[in-house]
Amino acid sequence: MNQVVTGKLTTWQRLRRAVLGSPIATKRAHHEKLSVTLGLPVFASDALSSVAYASEEILHVLVVAGIAGFTFLTPVSLWLVVLMLIIAFSYYQTIQAYPAGGGTYIVSTENLGSGAGRVAGAALLIDYVLTVAVSISSGVAAVVSLAPSTQDYGVWIGVTAIAVLCLANLRGVKESGAIFALPTYVFVVLVLALVGTAVFRGVGQPAIQPTIHPPQEGFHAVTMFLLLRAFAASCAALTGTEAIADGVGAFKEPAAKNAGRTLIAMVVLLLVMFVGISWSAQHFGVQVMEPTEPGFKTVLAQLAVAMFGEGPFFYVIQIATAAILFLAANTAFADFPRLCSFVARDGFMPRQLTSLGDRLVFQNGIVVLSVVAAGLLVVYNADTHSLIPLYALGVFVSFTLSQAGVCRKFVKERKADPANARRHTIHAALSGFGAVVTTVVSLILLVTKFSEGAWLILVAMTVLLSVFSLIRRHYDHLANELNLRPEDTVEKVQTIALLLVPRVHRGVLRAIAYAQGSARDCRALHVTLDPASSEKLKQEWNRLGIDMPLVILDSPYRSLVEPVVDYIDETTELFPDHMVTVIVPQAVPSRWVQGLLHTNAALGFKLALASRPQVAITNVRYFLK
Amino acid sequence: MNQVVTGKLTTWQRLRRAVLGSPIATKRAHHEKLSVTLGLPVFASDALSSVAYASEEILHVLVVAGIAGFTFLTPVSLWLVVLMLIIAFSYYQTIQAYPAGGGTYIVSTENLGSGAGRVAGAALLIDYVLTVAVSISSGVAAVVSLAPSTQDYGVWIGVTAIAVLCLANLRGVKESGAIFALPTYVFVVLVLALVGTAVFRGVGQPAIQPTIHPPQEGFHAVTMFLLLRAFAASCAALTGTEAIADGVGAFKEPAAKNAGRTLIAMVVLLLVMFVGISWSAQHFGVQVMEPTEPGFKTVLAQLAVAMFGEGPFFYVIQIATAAILFLAANTAFADFPRLCSFVARDGFMPRQLTSLGDRLVFQNGIVVLSVVAAGLLVVYNADTHSLIPLYALGVFVSFTLSQAGVCRKFVKERKADPANARRHTIHAALSGFGAVVTTVVSLILLVTKFSEGAWLILVAMTVLLSVFSLIRRHYDHLANELNLRPEDTVEKVQTIALLLVPRVHRGVLRAIAYAQGSARDCRALHVTLDPASSEKLKQEWNRLGIDMPLVILDSPYRSLVEPVVDYIDETTELFPDHMVTVIVPQAVPSRWVQGLLHTNAALGFKLALASRPQVAITNVRYFLK
Repeated sequence: MNQVVTGKLTTWQRLRRAVLGSPIATKRAHHEKLSVTLGLPVFASDALSSVAYASEEILHVLVVAGIAGFTFLTPVSLWLVVLMLIIAFSYYQTIQAYPAGGGTYIVSTENLGSGAGRVAGAALLIDYVLTVAVSISSGVAAVVSLAPSTQDYGVWIGVTAIAVLCLANLRGVKESGAIFALPTYVFVVLVLALVGTAVFRGVGQPAIQPTIHPPQEGFHAVTMFLLLRAFAASCAALTGTEAIADGVGAFKEPAAKNAGRTLIAMVVLLLVMFVGISWSAQHFGVQVMEPTEPGFKTVLAQLAVAMFGEGPFFYVIQIATAAILFLAANTAFADFPRLCSFVARDGFMPRQLTSLGDRLVFQNGIVVLSVVAAGLLVVYNADTHSLIPLYALGVFVSFTLSQAGVCRKFVKERKADPANARRHTIHAALSGFGAVVTTVVSLILLVTKFSEGAWLILVAMTVLLSVFSLIRRHYDHLANELNLRPEDTVEKVQTIALLLVPRVHRGVLRAIAYAQGSARDCRALHVTLDPASSEKLKQEWNRLGIDMPLVILDSPYRSLVEPVVDYIDETTELFPDHMVTVIVPQAVPSRWVQGLLHTNAALGFKLALASRPQVAITNVRYFLK
Repeated sequence: MNQVVTGKLTTWQRLRRAVLGSPIATKRAHHEKLSVTLGLPVFASDALSSVAYASEEILHVLVVAGIAGFTFLTPVSLWLVVLMLIIAFSYYQTIQAYPAGGGTYIVSTENLGSGAGRVAGAALLIDYVLTVAVSISSGVAAVVSLAPSTQDYGVWIGVTAIAVLCLANLRGVKESGAIFALPTYVFVVLVLALVGTAVFRGVGQPAIQPTIHPPQEGFHAVTMFLLLRAFAASCAALTGTEAIADGVGAFKEPAAKNAGRTLIAMVVLLLVMFVGISWSAQHFGVQVMEPTEPGFKTVLAQLAVAMFGEGPFFYVIQIATAAILFLAANTAFADFPRLCSFVARDGFMPRQLTSLGDRLVFQNGIVVLSVVAAGLLVVYNADTHSLIPLYALGVFVSFTLSQAGVCRKFVKERKADPANARRHTIHAALSGFGAVVTTVVSLILLVTKFSEGAWLILVAMTVLLSVFSLIRRHYDHLANELNLRPEDTVEKVQTIALLLVPRVHRGVLRAIAYAQGSARDCRALHVTLDPASSEKLKQEWNRLGIDMPLVILDSPYRSLVEPVVDYIDETTELFPDHMVTVIVPQAVPSRWVQGLLHTNAALGFKLALASRPQVAITNVRYFLK
């Protein structure tokens, strides 16, 4: 049930609630936690969906070696399997070691120091953005494979998808879990069916030779470097493995246990689907196409057609693929804002990122992610293949730091309780091994992808890290300027109230009373624009016997603001330790358009006095019926 | 000499002064008055420049009657001369009758009542806008005739010209007089030279037959209606005649006398140039061209070429023509804002239009005129011929009303002093006659131009007039709501100060002191977003022994604003006759970009409390070094 906070609602509030739902009370926070069944789609859709492009990306590299290279698809895929198992295992331990969750950033900060933590944080933030960009563009590819007529509108489809995700997540995580469960499970089932059919038909039959048109530069030999590049390309499939560990906090109690189960389920599914697709694609001689080619189809789409023809199965699997890929981006939407809030809490990003919105989500982080990712999508024209080189590097850097951190932790713990020294040693060894492996992979990624775009990631990280420290410096500076010194106390401050009086009317009477009530020393200021009316004002003032000195200011240049500013400056010079309150009476018409018939004096004063520390400005409004 | 008002100048002020010049003191107002020599270019450039297109517009109509119609150019022009004399004479009297100036609007209001005044005002305002649009587009035509390569950029040239005029006028009328004198006089001299040459060469020689390509619908007979349409087209030449009478106030003393002289000078020059051009054009068989035709040249340009070839004279006269036409628009810039201020003073237009800027000009009126005219130019693609039908109707309506008004005045005066009854009768008769003639002309204009666009003017006037009355109603309503009743006095008002305290730091200490100083009943409000920090706050509060009750508000939905608003609503219900001051401490960083790292709480409160009449919001700012 959604309670309403207050009786009065502005139109904006109404609209906001229609779209984002009513506020959710803090005490209901735990209601938003996820079960394994909902946790899998929310946190694993990223990893799972990557099978939709991982095999294809390997082919993209191998194809330059023609048939010869093609036959390496399955082997390379198997390397990835090994890597995946190592990382999964190592993250399983992370979850046990950190049942409270928080993941890479917190782990590295705690065990390797703030510097390492920030590097991990920056790397992950960049990677979350790329997760969105890559998943969305690959989802677009699925749509195009299904409906060739949409080939020219890829970018728009993608941007729209991001907008929808943004809103869904602003509504809150529970809802997103619900929205995202169905497509994820449909996709998994259909891919398994597809792979199953392929294996069933294919095993024992001779493999079909693909007809490969040689690339411009002609065929290359199958070099180790080529295979490494292929491997590097496939690493994208592993991004998102950390999502669960980072998000343990979002799971139902027992969080660690549930998170662990989800992780295992994810890895098993991922392995079967990925290896299956790679093997089938190779066995049935599927070939890679450029998204701009007429009649473009993804590898998965071609496989589906090869197995079941362009029938209903093909349509359904394409839709499911598109759906899960759009939702894969949601992993980032679940994690990016949370990570931002951690980093911001430590003062390396703007404080606003730490504030939980009234729907219990870090709304600012969600918006930032949407904007940046959409920008990237437009720049790269929603082409998965050209985004991939940027991808995965960041995530492997963070893998390394996180596992190194966990390893360090176990080493410490071994010292702490020698009783279980042996168990701790094993844990440490495993995590350490993971760290070493991912370090190697990171290097492979950097070297093989450098010229294709990996260098951009280095630049981005440098920028992010320096921004982090600039922001932190500002907050530190702020703190030591604002923090109370022992000698600080509240010293009495005399206030002088200056009431601006254009002419005496009922609206001003109230302001006069307010001024008298708000300061012992209060004076009325009148700027003479036309001598006659000033005369009239003086008489009125005396007639009403108002107990407040009336100061008449000349305005040789007919400006309303400047004489007042000058008067204030003189006053503050006379009383350097006083505060001056400028009281500006303002008419508030019943309809906004009537506002055009009134000059908003207050605004002018605000601007003119912006730099005067001793001055405070108050609008006393009188409402017109 | 331009004094500077205050030592501290913001960048914006600096920039503003660089472009518009420093403020001019009110006492120096009379320095801005105009002599005859400067008055002629400022107020007569409109009328004088119209010779650049008047003859052409007549031809535009006559051309459909082929050679036969062509021969009527001079006769039709002569009708206009007669009309011009009648109007000029009648306006000469207006000036004498109203030496203070103010012109049509004031004259009609005084003698025929506010209704008639408003009609005249609306008509003139519309016509001033059209003066700008027509003169500018005709100026563009002159430029294009000189440099055919600019044919496609007409609109942009025009809009730029308007922008320049706008700035020049914001600087002040004296400067514009100086800027505009030279081109006006150059133009007059050159046209007189051109006409002189034409007459000298042409008289006694047989007239050259123009080669006229028949319009699509073929040639028509020369009907009376056709001649009337031609005549109507030429009436544009008379617009601007009223400018001097309206602007008497801007002339040096003796204002009436100087204005009168200027009027006479203007009419004489106008007559000679106009008749001269018409006769020459007819005699040398000049033909009308469409502005889109390749090698387009205006009638005046063709005449110049015919007389002196495409040599230096041609270039200079084209430049002078373009210049005076762009400046003709300046007449409107001198008069439109002044008229606005009169109408606004009577409460029919927004008050802001009455305020003299620091350069002694009605800046708001100038800006409004520029924007509207530029819009019109864009819509009509800067084509003089298609704008002309809208033109002149408004001005003749106002002619009629003004002269009827003057006539009425003399009738009254005759009653007043029977001694000079006879003189008054003659005056009255002359003005009356003028009124009758202009009424007839107005009808001719309306009928002959109705379908071509005159109907638009009727619509525009209806809209303007209803807006006038709506605005007036609002101001009346305002007045009677705000005007003091005899029983009104200043009743004491109790104020309650509510200080928002996120946490206790040095910036807040000052705000606390300020709050204590500004109300007897003041309380600190703290919204609990995280219980721990609230606890800390309480301790700090007690430790410092702050003499102010600390109210802790829960925020079940983590909103900072809503709990405060609720609290305020409760308070104002308890004390319906109190005022509540919400004091929001706010950090002001030294660099604006750092502002992004601070949430501007005050803004949220302003929006949320906008509709609460008892509430006033004060920002107490603390500046960060």
